[in-house]
Amino acid sequence: MVSTVQPTSDTRETRRLISSEKVTATAVQNARGDSLGHIEDIMIDKISGQVAYAVLNYGSFLGLMGGKLFAVPWDMLKYNTQRSAYVIDVPEERLKNAPSFDEGSEPEWGDRDYDRRLHDYYGSKADWYM
Amino acid sequence: MVSTVQPTSDTRETRRLISSEKVTATAVQNARGDSLGHIEDIMIDKISGQVAYAVLNYGSFLGLMGGKLFAVPWDMLKYNTQRSAYVIDVPEERLKNAPSFDEGSEPEWGDRDYDRRLHDYYGSKADWYM
Repeated sequence: MVSTVQPTSDTRETRRLISSEKVTATAVQNARGDSLGHIEDIMIDKISGQVAYAVLNYGSFLGLMGGKLFAVPWDMLKYNTQRSAYVIDVPEERLKNAPSFDEGSEPEWGDRDYDRRLHDYYGSKADWYM
Repeated sequence: MVSTVQPTSDTRETRRLISSEKVTATAVQNARGDSLGHIEDIMIDKISGQVAYAVLNYGSFLGLMGGKLFAVPWDMLKYNTQRSAYVIDVPEERLKNAPSFDEGSEPEWGDRDYDRRLHDYYGSKADWYM
């Protein structure tokens, strides 16, 4: 397809915004483009409105038993507009062995030690939140 | 109730994080504490993970016909931990006459002119997004 419009970094992204409901339907992939699972929920800082964590459900892709959820610091997920997916560039072994919680239960949201553990585990740079 | 713990600005807020699903069940009030309606949806910047807009449904409180939704820049809503509600301190006449869209339709999400119109209307300071 021939386009007369030069792509620039300023190209309007009409889909820059996404409804929180639709985020949970967005695919999550590894760097190679394999599907890792989906976003089950997102945790938002009430005050700042910044998304703190994506809650990921890897299904059986990582050889996990079902029913485990993983809170991943938001800055570990990069949105890839070509793939219309979030990409998480973390080795699978590390994803599998990350802190998790059972579906239907709630981890220590807002607990500083829990937050630090998660951020340290993934090497998150999101110190705005700590 | 006597507390031996000095309240400080560093007091742990265990409910600092909220699930995106639950945000939509959170009440919205005016400065006096009257219920204005509820958050119908939130629009998130895919890349930064920052909430850009709350989509508000005022129901009939403002004397509006049903079915109208209002995209309000997130920084116009202040979370009040005592009331467990978001407070929007904007005169009712201004809320009523704000840009709105019909339920079931979608406004020009991501359109710069639309964004600017909304931010200007509410006097939003959220220039990170513009």
